[in-house]
Amino acid sequence: MSLITLLQNRTLKTALLTFYGLLSLTFSAAASSAETTLPLVKKQVFSLPSLTLFNGATITNVNVGWEAYGTLNEDKSNVVLITHYFSASSHAAGRYTPEGPVGYWDALIGPGKAIDTSVYYVISVDTLVNLNAYSDTVTTTGPATVNPDTGKPWGLDFPVVTIRDFVNVQKSLLESLGISKLHAVVGASMGSMQAIDWASAYPEWVPRMISVIGTGETDAWTTAALEQWATPIKVDSRWNNGDYSIDEQPMNGLVGSLMLITQHALTPEFFNQQGKTLGYQQLEDAPMHDIRQNHSIVNWLRSRAESRAQQMDANHLLYLVRACQLFVAGHKGSLEQGLSSVKAKTLFVPASTDLLLMPYLAQNAHDILNQNGVSSQYQALDGELGHLEGVLDISEQANLISEFLSQ
Amino acid sequence: MSLITLLQNRTLKTALLTFYGLLSLTFSAAASSAETTLPLVKKQVFSLPSLTLFNGATITNVNVGWEAYGTLNEDKSNVVLITHYFSASSHAAGRYTPEGPVGYWDALIGPGKAIDTSVYYVISVDTLVNLNAYSDTVTTTGPATVNPDTGKPWGLDFPVVTIRDFVNVQKSLLESLGISKLHAVVGASMGSMQAIDWASAYPEWVPRMISVIGTGETDAWTTAALEQWATPIKVDSRWNNGDYSIDEQPMNGLVGSLMLITQHALTPEFFNQQGKTLGYQQLEDAPMHDIRQNHSIVNWLRSRAESRAQQMDANHLLYLVRACQLFVAGHKGSLEQGLSSVKAKTLFVPASTDLLLMPYLAQNAHDILNQNGVSSQYQALDGELGHLEGVLDISEQANLISEFLSQ
Repeated sequence: MSLITLLQNRTLKTALLTFYGLLSLTFSAAASSAETTLPLVKKQVFSLPSLTLFNGATITNVNVGWEAYGTLNEDKSNVVLITHYFSASSHAAGRYTPEGPVGYWDALIGPGKAIDTSVYYVISVDTLVNLNAYSDTVTTTGPATVNPDTGKPWGLDFPVVTIRDFVNVQKSLLESLGISKLHAVVGASMGSMQAIDWASAYPEWVPRMISVIGTGETDAWTTAALEQWATPIKVDSRWNNGDYSIDEQPMNGLVGSLMLITQHALTPEFFNQQGKTLGYQQLEDAPMHDIRQNHSIVNWLRSRAESRAQQMDANHLLYLVRACQLFVAGHKGSLEQGLSSVKAKTLFVPASTDLLLMPYLAQNAHDILNQNGVSSQYQALDGELGHLEGVLDISEQANLISEFLSQ
Repeated sequence: MSLITLLQNRTLKTALLTFYGLLSLTFSAAASSAETTLPLVKKQVFSLPSLTLFNGATITNVNVGWEAYGTLNEDKSNVVLITHYFSASSHAAGRYTPEGPVGYWDALIGPGKAIDTSVYYVISVDTLVNLNAYSDTVTTTGPATVNPDTGKPWGLDFPVVTIRDFVNVQKSLLESLGISKLHAVVGASMGSMQAIDWASAYPEWVPRMISVIGTGETDAWTTAALEQWATPIKVDSRWNNGDYSIDEQPMNGLVGSLMLITQHALTPEFFNQQGKTLGYQQLEDAPMHDIRQNHSIVNWLRSRAESRAQQMDANHLLYLVRACQLFVAGHKGSLEQGLSSVKAKTLFVPASTDLLLMPYLAQNAHDILNQNGVSSQYQALDGELGHLEGVLDISEQANLISEFLSQ
């Protein structure tokens, strides 16, 4: 889909504006009319008294938010698990209130949509160390949570968590609902890490797996790139080795980190289109005459990041970076070893313009699975939004996803 | 050239190690034998009592270093000007001492090489606000320089400078040597900005221009990406709005910035090859058990950045970022307007794997010049080093460059 078509498309435009924290400025009465036919979504909380982590550490009093769309059938065989990306929450579809924003994959999930809630019971869970720690609609456990043993936030005493730990919390929740097998697991980006780890760790649970803008492992390049996201926070003296109060977050560092993440997830085409809208010029007066001033495109990027940072926690960002850096499907010695246990039919949907998780990563996992005799499909998204194709433009492959799930 | 071939090639390996600050660890007696046949290079200093900048501000007591290889012919018609990249200095070829490191384009410049010093008088000049402000072999004027009016370093009171100002200092030096026309101007990356601005601003001086890993302008995408380089420094409280002493530089921020720049200039192929050398694994013990520890690939990247940062100044990095952000060839209202004055025959040599100045940037300038009826050639470097192809692997196009200069 071209950028111009995209910006003419009301639903996607809304999603894009939501992503950039612009929604409150532009959301009109018209937008509150039924763009989705899902009933209002209810956020719920799942609690675990204790969780032993992949690295051997134990945390107590674990709480995560979750939500579901559609109806669980009698034999509990119609469950599609949606695993969320780095900066998202379990809010994948529908609205909490008639005026509220739709979930990030509302174009994909709902009655009659590709992930059809009149057929499937679709469930989604906030991860541990969720980035949006201070959002009213997110429940998570992480360094910003009060440590029951000390009565103070964990800070860096919170143990390192992995993608496997996110998966295990989801599995405990599903088991508490009497579910013992999925119809499919579907995730974008960091959600794809959880999806393929599910297929490797619990193959009897997972007959179908869809990886969108995904990877089977974090290679050395990506581990280093993720570390660049952490740098601005760690350099900010208000970070104070993770020991800060909510009112004194390392906000400069957090905003710097989000500026980098935002650009990493997009493309020159998107920024240059935005530059045209802003009237970007190289020789803008303010930056030419004052080193303290910035170009219009930089001010725009910063403003979006500042808006998004308000509900986020800096330590949670560092722990999410770490979970992603430690990721290899199966959490074994190699990707080949991890993928050898996969029984699921798999579908990989990378974005051809992705600069964050480049298509070679999905291609590599797809190739290994094919060599293992697993049925695997590979179909790229071809738009100009880079990594965000997988969030904002996923409906381009709605038919493929629908067919994959029905087979 | 493949990475394996590259790492087997002694000269390029030396250049690579130099770039990563590893040279002191690995430079052997063998390497001090004559790999270049240039005589020892002498660094010189050019001074201007006063310089009026493109933005209208004036600075006094301007000093820059320069060096030359080969012999100026009688009618002063054999001058090839080399303009340097962001983190480099005027040290483009040869050695200052028998044991010292060779210049960054030594593979290209020397007797019998593509830029043949037995034919051309090759000259190169340290830019204003040069990054390596504390290097013994660099002379520059910028925020780390003492302001003659106050007796203290300029800091952020130093005016904003542009690529045009670098060009104008070079022109003054050339004029002081009695030179009134170039045979060619050749530059990589930020050096390409200077080269094409020369061709636009002073078309009578420039019959030939070579842009390596270059661009005709800084688009909105690149301006935003450059700002990410500035972020870690600005977030570091020791930066203190640019007011710090040399002994108390914002070193955490500067190192973070260099880590980002280094990765931006390379590729997944390079990092993943380096990861193999280091034994990189996702589930390394230290980062899995301690959020304060890092993966081997991150420690490697940091260590290289720490080594390089020792001779650099944080404010100079910010001013270089700004000069690049303000860049459009000709420093007029648009690239088309700027290129309309170019008379030079031009050659663009981008790198097909470049993630920093992507090939579309060189392609765009090349296309406009062709439409203007200027003779322009375009030939990409096809190796796996990304942006650094243009520094470390330029000899791949040595024949093309040699032919271009001789016509």
